[in-house]
Amino acid sequence: MVETKLAFHTVGVIGRLGSELVVDSVKRLEGHLENLEVEVVVEKATAAMVPRNAFKVLERAEMGKHCDLVVVVGGDGSLLGVARDLVDHGVPLLGINRGGLGYLADIRPEDIEHRVGEVLNGNYYIEQHFLLEVEVFSGDRVIGRSSALNEILVHSGSMSRMMEFALYINDEFVYDLHADGLMISTPTGSTAYALSAGGPIIHPSLDAIVVLPMFPHTLTSRPLVVGGDAEFRIELASTNQRDAAISCDSQVDIPVSSGDFAVVRKKQERLKLIYPMEHSFYDSLRSKLDWASRLGGRK
Amino acid sequence: MVETKLAFHTVGVIGRLGSELVVDSVKRLEGHLENLEVEVVVEKATAAMVPRNAFKVLERAEMGKHCDLVVVVGGDGSLLGVARDLVDHGVPLLGINRGGLGYLADIRPEDIEHRVGEVLNGNYYIEQHFLLEVEVFSGDRVIGRSSALNEILVHSGSMSRMMEFALYINDEFVYDLHADGLMISTPTGSTAYALSAGGPIIHPSLDAIVVLPMFPHTLTSRPLVVGGDAEFRIELASTNQRDAAISCDSQVDIPVSSGDFAVVRKKQERLKLIYPMEHSFYDSLRSKLDWASRLGGRK
Amino acid sequence: MVETKLAFHTVGVIGRLGSELVVDSVKRLEGHLENLEVEVVVEKATAAMVPRNAFKVLERAEMGKHCDLVVVVGGDGSLLGVARDLVDHGVPLLGINRGGLGYLADIRPEDIEHRVGEVLNGNYYIEQHFLLEVEVFSGDRVIGRSSALNEILVHSGSMSRMMEFALYINDEFVYDLHADGLMISTPTGSTAYALSAGGPIIHPSLDAIVVLPMFPHTLTSRPLVVGGDAEFRIELASTNQRDAAISCDSQVDIPVSSGDFAVVRKKQERLKLIYPMEHSFYDSLRSKLDWASRLGGRK
Amino acid sequence: MVETKLAFHTVGVIGRLGSELVVDSVKRLEGHLENLEVEVVVEKATAAMVPRNAFKVLERAEMGKHCDLVVVVGGDGSLLGVARDLVDHGVPLLGINRGGLGYLADIRPEDIEHRVGEVLNGNYYIEQHFLLEVEVFSGDRVIGRSSALNEILVHSGSMSRMMEFALYINDEFVYDLHADGLMISTPTGSTAYALSAGGPIIHPSLDAIVVLPMFPHTLTSRPLVVGGDAEFRIELASTNQRDAAISCDSQVDIPVSSGDFAVVRKKQERLKLIYPMEHSFYDSLRSKLDWASRLGGRK
Repeated sequence: MVETKLAFHTVGVIGRLGSELVVDSVKRLEGHLENLEVEVVVEKATAAMVPRNAFKVLERAEMGKHCDLVVVVGGDGSLLGVARDLVDHGVPLLGINRGGLGYLADIRPEDIEHRVGEVLNGNYYIEQHFLLEVEVFSGDRVIGRSSALNEILVHSGSMSRMMEFALYINDEFVYDLHADGLMISTPTGSTAYALSAGGPIIHPSLDAIVVLPMFPHTLTSRPLVVGGDAEFRIELASTNQRDAAISCDSQVDIPVSSGDFAVVRKKQERLKLIYPMEHSFYDSLRSKLDWASRLGGRK
Repeated sequence: MVETKLAFHTVGVIGRLGSELVVDSVKRLEGHLENLEVEVVVEKATAAMVPRNAFKVLERAEMGKHCDLVVVVGGDGSLLGVARDLVDHGVPLLGINRGGLGYLADIRPEDIEHRVGEVLNGNYYIEQHFLLEVEVFSGDRVIGRSSALNEILVHSGSMSRMMEFALYINDEFVYDLHADGLMISTPTGSTAYALSAGGPIIHPSLDAIVVLPMFPHTLTSRPLVVGGDAEFRIELASTNQRDAAISCDSQVDIPVSSGDFAVVRKKQERLKLIYPMEHSFYDSLRSKLDWASRLGGRK
Repeated sequence: MVETKLAFHTVGVIGRLGSELVVDSVKRLEGHLENLEVEVVVEKATAAMVPRNAFKVLERAEMGKHCDLVVVVGGDGSLLGVARDLVDHGVPLLGINRGGLGYLADIRPEDIEHRVGEVLNGNYYIEQHFLLEVEVFSGDRVIGRSSALNEILVHSGSMSRMMEFALYINDEFVYDLHADGLMISTPTGSTAYALSAGGPIIHPSLDAIVVLPMFPHTLTSRPLVVGGDAEFRIELASTNQRDAAISCDSQVDIPVSSGDFAVVRKKQERLKLIYPMEHSFYDSLRSKLDWASRLGGRK
Repeated sequence: MVETKLAFHTVGVIGRLGSELVVDSVKRLEGHLENLEVEVVVEKATAAMVPRNAFKVLERAEMGKHCDLVVVVGGDGSLLGVARDLVDHGVPLLGINRGGLGYLADIRPEDIEHRVGEVLNGNYYIEQHFLLEVEVFSGDRVIGRSSALNEILVHSGSMSRMMEFALYINDEFVYDLHADGLMISTPTGSTAYALSAGGPIIHPSLDAIVVLPMFPHTLTSRPLVVGGDAEFRIELASTNQRDAAISCDSQVDIPVSSGDFAVVRKKQERLKLIYPMEHSFYDSLRSKLDWASRLGGRK
């Protein structure tokens, strides 16, 4: 092995639990890393799933402090979770895709050695993604707090139940809405759930946030795009269902009640996402949204 | 009072519980009816809310057999519930609107004497609305059954959770879908929840059913309109969340699990809805969807 | 060659002009037909493009009377044109696809001998498609008349110009609209231009017509589906642009002026479209709309 | 009259031609201005429509140099035209609304004296709006050039004709598209034509541009929002219709042919739009989009 200076020295490994394919890829990744001049740190839950003796094992919360790169094996969902957990430490993430289409995690399992090798040799590209943070208040008491890389969703708890809430942006009243929910999405989230919900695609470099009513009663409701510095306050009306909740990336739920309110704003710390080479957003859209397919039947 | 022959002889009264405004209108309605040559039957729960001594009191389930007209005081939601409960008896319903816009219940409270009087005198118009019925199967065992005037919704139980299911229409495979849910709507429902969900408006006289994916992952999914005789089978994949449910008119929920399936088809009995005069669907759309409002800002 | 009784005796051939690929397929088709016990009739314009001596040559307008089957080589666009021209004669059409996706024309060029052979041997399936007909009036004078298999579009003549018109259905006033245009689509058209314009997919067996405002100013405008027997009257306001037109299948344009009106209704004669075997509408949607593709990026 | 120092000294007046209501408001405006210590300059075409002797008359092109405020009487359409013509001179515009909803021109005719008075006294608020500029190339020759406050639309010349083009953003290939057109909209335009076309609402302070396919064949096409510094290149394929055009604010058309291309970018000069007081974007949306109206028919 050539004595090149590697770009990263302590590499963390986190795998999505419960999948044989992930276990295979974690093994392959570990096999690759143990021959390199890097210290490898495996997340405790991942280590339990893929027993190896040689590596240091840490709780996920500790990995942010020890690693200067964390490789996540799973899909975009796994990356969302790790991003929320480690974003405060500023450690960059690299995703091996073992899930669906993989916007965030886009290294294919068969390319592990080649792509991870390139990254460790310093041939990589960092894309910064901002997260949203939400604080939930009951009166002046904070009853919950979380963050999201894709979207924060205030919802009635069940799809077939309506809720009523008021939206304020930077303390300006926007509207009272009857809807199943309200989604606040980052540019990163604009190609995920928000896209299913009828939102526009936002270029990742744009400092903007999208507000999307979900099945609104008001037929004139439309997606709204505002600046990244906006602060959102969503106040639940007093007539709401009892099961309302605030959902972060569809992974963390905070129960809310009538009269509670949530404040959503951009989180200061950014996620640093590593791609093994220059990464074209439009290439990615074309291949992942299948923009080449066309309708027949028209002249 | 003139000795005219009335069109109806036994008039039931049902009011939405829990609203002072409804109580007022029920009183006013009862006051009007007691001067007419009709027998008045009050639903037991309604009677408890608006105590009157002179009238016969029955459980709702009994009213279908005894009444030849039932007046519902509430909003469209109340009418949906009464419709499901009484449709098998064929008794026509007349709605006094104490709710929102009132597509189904469109007599205004201040017009009770005038409009109800007209109807009793035989000046009315009957609009037939078909319902959907759903049977839910776990293996070959029926685990639930209900009906809906607006829509039947198969959903993941929570808005931010995806589900996976297969749709068959008349035993033909249509698609596997990842989505938050799937809605099957009647023409009546096409101006309600289905409209919020992006569905087309279906003329009430058209024998057709709409299928609407809710936040589908597949960007090419579109609303689908098929004949009223179609039978739908929705099979939940084995990987689904545990809280999936089938919701009828957002009022009745049937819990379902991985591998269960639902069969949805048109119900044989039709709801007979009474309007005090010739009722124009397009007039109603124009006033209720506010089709006169226009955007500025274009030349 | 086996002496089977063929299902058709006089087979017409029409090819789209101006394409080498169409010429190749027409030659191949003619080569196949000349060995069979059928009389072959070639459209005059097609014959000029693919000179052969042995076959009878007729103007397209004559072919409807002489043929009991017409094979169209081209794409869906070619079939739309032939359908409008020959529908009154009741002759069934069979399409060889040399265009885009091919909803209507779905025999692949490499399957000509096999599929056309099957059809001639009586193994085929006929799908009936209704057309719309439009009559355009200036006062009580008819100034234009045409028909459409997909859609009839009243438009301002240019995409960036708005028009104003009133819509009546069965003599009931529906709305005044400011928009770039109004589309009236058959179920057949619902997977073509109407789908791009946000309309629902209508099952081909449903006797229904879709009304679609095009870029309406009124944000509450929605696609409207009504029964196949509806008669539509679209009246241009007196303030319109001078270039307004009525377009049939994007192939025939009838210029209209302020104050003119158009009447659109179902045409009595149906197009008989032949498929070489049982044809599943849902299979076709799945493959042509690419319903298997899914978004990534969601959990 | 009090001797206050006015905020503006030379006030231009431009009215939309051909409307009696505009003539009335121009007269009223001129009557108000002639009692103030301002020099009044009337556009030549406007002066011809509203003859007054006392005022200086100039061609529109000259007014930008002479005026430090121009009052436009008409609707948003009139303001769009004046904005394109005068934006290079940096003169702020004030709109009296004699058109439709009036996002840009929002002083009501009956408030002329009061509101114009306030503005002249220095009680006003300036909102900056960026424009787009387009250059059209045939080979390396510029064949047209214009600008737009709302949107630039590349279209096939007629609504029912498709075109084919390639889109590049900042020299990155985005997609080849078959569609009726492609719209590129400013935040200002996002509440106008772009909103009818399914685009999101963009807050006026956001430095962003929206790309909207118009009736695309590709069902996965979605609105795309990118940064305000993006440069767009739209290349017409060689197969297009001969009537394609580039339309600016639906007011200026530049004909284009197969193989031509257009470059669209933000214009350096901003439109300064004056409002008589602090102007809330969300208030304006609520009142102009009628966000208080709600659907009935759902529980």
